[in-house]
Amino acid sequence: MIDLSGPWVVGVDIGGTNLVVGLVSVEGGEPCGLRSQSTPSERGPDATVDEIGRMVTDAIEDVVSEGGAVTDQVLGVGIGCPGSIDRTSGLVRTTPNLGWVDYPISRKIANALQLPTVLDNDANCATYAEWWRGAGQGVEHLVGITVGTGVGGGVMLGGRIMRGASGSAGEVGHTTIDLNGRRCSCGNYGCLEAYASGSSIALRAIEGLRAGSQSVLTELVNGNINQISAALVYEALQLGDQYAHEIILETAKFLGIGIANLINTLNPDVVVVVGGVVGAGDYLFGAIREEVKQRSFKSAFEACKIVPGQLPETAGIIGAAGIFISEMPGQL
Amino acid sequence: MIDLSGPWVVGVDIGGTNLVVGLVSVEGGEPCGLRSQSTPSERGPDATVDEIGRMVTDAIEDVVSEGGAVTDQVLGVGIGCPGSIDRTSGLVRTTPNLGWVDYPISRKIANALQLPTVLDNDANCATYAEWWRGAGQGVEHLVGITVGTGVGGGVMLGGRIMRGASGSAGEVGHTTIDLNGRRCSCGNYGCLEAYASGSSIALRAIEGLRAGSQSVLTELVNGNINQISAALVYEALQLGDQYAHEIILETAKFLGIGIANLINTLNPDVVVVVGGVVGAGDYLFGAIREEVKQRSFKSAFEACKIVPGQLPETAGIIGAAGIFISEMPGQL
Repeated sequence: MIDLSGPWVVGVDIGGTNLVVGLVSVEGGEPCGLRSQSTPSERGPDATVDEIGRMVTDAIEDVVSEGGAVTDQVLGVGIGCPGSIDRTSGLVRTTPNLGWVDYPISRKIANALQLPTVLDNDANCATYAEWWRGAGQGVEHLVGITVGTGVGGGVMLGGRIMRGASGSAGEVGHTTIDLNGRRCSCGNYGCLEAYASGSSIALRAIEGLRAGSQSVLTELVNGNINQISAALVYEALQLGDQYAHEIILETAKFLGIGIANLINTLNPDVVVVVGGVVGAGDYLFGAIREEVKQRSFKSAFEACKIVPGQLPETAGIIGAAGIFISEMPGQL
Repeated sequence: MIDLSGPWVVGVDIGGTNLVVGLVSVEGGEPCGLRSQSTPSERGPDATVDEIGRMVTDAIEDVVSEGGAVTDQVLGVGIGCPGSIDRTSGLVRTTPNLGWVDYPISRKIANALQLPTVLDNDANCATYAEWWRGAGQGVEHLVGITVGTGVGGGVMLGGRIMRGASGSAGEVGHTTIDLNGRRCSCGNYGCLEAYASGSSIALRAIEGLRAGSQSVLTELVNGNINQISAALVYEALQLGDQYAHEIILETAKFLGIGIANLINTLNPDVVVVVGGVVGAGDYLFGAIREEVKQRSFKSAFEACKIVPGQLPETAGIIGAAGIFISEMPGQL
């Protein structure tokens, strides 16, 4: 029996691979009624909204209906989405992973559920979640870095996401750390993402093996080294593989440079790193701190905690719901 | 006869080369009673404070005394200082250019003038001045980059300097743009300052001439190429020198990368570049914008003006006084 401690806000996390929904209480505690399934991206955005509608309806039934009246306990829906979004119009401008263009996701979900919605990008949601209920609770200045297929981020100041002049602040993945460096998927050279994203970690591992490095990774993929993923590198690291250690040390150096740049610019209390790369564990974070220490102002380094996120599965929905709550009338 | 439109706040700009003081009206308008002289750095900080005391007393006499009562029209003193400062205790921790260590500049000046003081670093003062009365008046998000002997900066949000957890936010000169790049005076490699500061511009020019490049610069220093300064490079640029054009184009590329990183991270309304480098003029700024366009998010680039500062001589005192005023009781 679930403790009914609403009112609730629905969190919807639309990923390139998975949809996650759940109910987040305004009062705190773990999210309830969690649902996760693969994103039906091949069937287009309307089909995805249909799925989300069913998942949310089920979740609400689970969590809230036992008390009888449903709608007065669910205040609205926070939606997190990858790619370029327009918060004001509730549009997804482009999402490389989903293939949507100028899709009115906010209105579609509002219509499907007859609830008000708030839209934000996935990196802002994850950052907000870690500030609200995770690794950086309540600090004044927090920067989130999301390391998954790509590298994203969010900047928080005084409990609010800094959005900037056109709503695109926090795109730390496309800051340059090596001016003539690796080609990035964005078309530029030397972006942090071209070194430290999950795809880049896998690519660097593959390049080294092609160049003759020895590693348990080759066995783990039965010689098909193109199948190596970042997750597999973290697995090899746990197995004590020396080559995986080298790849992770390099990754820590690159992430450390990007983080040192943020620390010198913003002097935050906390930098929280979220996403798959957290799977590389303490070894990664120790090496990140070493690099940051070398490249950042002493007082700024000493004032800043660099930590892994604490909400690996649920940051997306918690953050989306949290941002909805933070923007309700009457909130600070 | 000066128009008496106080109340006034004294601005003091302590540079490695020059001291500048002046009176800034709370109501607006040009600063009055300007005094400038070389910093007696070889005689130590107490002698410098004595000079400042004399300069300010003279300035107050010029501007305010004609009305009779002096002290009730001068509210206090804003002090801008290079190096690492502690605003709370009013200490200059270290200033490489002046050689001061843990010097209580705020208390010394307060005692000398019997007025309350506020201390900030020179880059924050210049940034605040450009937001308050210069190239970025009243915008929500502004980043200032100061390019002189070194490269510094300030970040403003909603009319306030962002200070960060330990007061060192805005140190954009030591963000990495080239991870294995040029050695910086801070001991690291690839900092923006190692490429784009005045000293680095001069150094790059000298290196190229040593490697055989031809330029009017060699004549301008009668063959003593070690005497080439950044200012001389700007002069050669005005003379149509091709080599100076190349050096400035390179400088624009480096500054553009640093600015693109700030734009991707913060999405400001305005980036204002201040300091000697502004002497390179429109040619520099056109090339900076080209580089930024390539490396920043489209919406963020389009939302951001990249402009030279408008207060070349007086940003330091205007900003120091402005920050004092912004922190007076009753101000937002």
